[in-house]
Amino acid sequence: MSKTLERRAKQRDALIESAERMIKTRGLAGLKTRDLAQEIGVANGAVYNLVADVDELVLMVGSRTLARLDAELSAAESAGPSGPEAALERIAVAYCDFAAHNLELWRALFEHRMAPDKPLPDWAVADQMHLFRHIHQPLAALFPQRSFDDISVIARSLFSAVHGMVALGLEQKLIAVPLALLRQQIAAMVKAMVTGLVAADNAAR
Amino acid sequence: MSKTLERRAKQRDALIESAERMIKTRGLAGLKTRDLAQEIGVANGAVYNLVADVDELVLMVGSRTLARLDAELSAAESAGPSGPEAALERIAVAYCDFAAHNLELWRALFEHRMAPDKPLPDWAVADQMHLFRHIHQPLAALFPQRSFDDISVIARSLFSAVHGMVALGLEQKLIAVPLALLRQQIAAMVKAMVTGLVAADNAAR
Repeated sequence: MSKTLERRAKQRDALIESAERMIKTRGLAGLKTRDLAQEIGVANGAVYNLVADVDELVLMVGSRTLARLDAELSAAESAGPSGPEAALERIAVAYCDFAAHNLELWRALFEHRMAPDKPLPDWAVADQMHLFRHIHQPLAALFPQRSFDDISVIARSLFSAVHGMVALGLEQKLIAVPLALLRQQIAAMVKAMVTGLVAADNAAR
Repeated sequence: MSKTLERRAKQRDALIESAERMIKTRGLAGLKTRDLAQEIGVANGAVYNLVADVDELVLMVGSRTLARLDAELSAAESAGPSGPEAALERIAVAYCDFAAHNLELWRALFEHRMAPDKPLPDWAVADQMHLFRHIHQPLAALFPQRSFDDISVIARSLFSAVHGMVALGLEQKLIAVPLALLRQQIAAMVKAMVTGLVAADNAAR
């Protein structure tokens, strides 16, 4: 790598780390490229020599957030008795913990919207889909006779349901719930959903 | 009512209706008091003679949205076989339909945040809590031996789970799902949750 490229790569890393810190403390709405430029010591416009636009920058921060979430979900998978039911409960509770402890970075994953006619880049889609394996694998163990696509539908529903409980539970509004209680409720609802899905599956056969 | 008060009341109604139309077409972020003032034919600053601030205005629009949602949930309750399980499924699907058909007004209910140190007014909290009866009543019929507070916790979890499925399902992002499919998935998950909750309840006794 030439000296120039090397410097550019370092500045780019600094930019992403600076954006991550800024989202963490101020939320996505508080991300200002002028402040970022000042923090990493480049001219305002020079930020756009390092990333194409703010969307790309936010997605890169998101990619780091997803990688950390991935690691925590993996840890949760093996942090208790084996068996898909228990694993699904642990993964849901780990998701809740991650959101609680990384509130603004986690919110940014869902608040961020691309400019209207700009599709999400493939690597960002792949990052997100990759995480679904944590739900997909235990569900596939529970429902061995179901197709991959069937399992994907259930995984998506299960994730969305847990996400809703986490999102509204952590909101500073109406439904704010102490974290310990929220974790219990999530575990109970995941258990109920899985029990109910298995019962429906048995009844259908 | 004096002529002046009467005129003020009419202007206030016009303001709320205008704000509702604006949120409907542009989303909450597109609500601009300058445009509202122009639309109802008053000076810019005069908007604040009609409502205290934008928060109050958004809550008043929200109150109308909640009233229409309330009516649709009531209709769904009686639109099929009696029995709490079936009622809960219909209510969840009706919630999904309402969100799909009132997308921006429904989003505004959840996107709107009060200024940091300003609490939600009591009437707005009451509006929201009132809606929970649609979930609370069938759950109370399913679990007659549970306390009111216990049922409230389950109602909140169930609502949050369904809300998550609706919110992510209707997002124009990763998990967008055709409405007909989303309705099916919501009904299936609510059925599974209820079955699982009843099974857990029976096992605990």
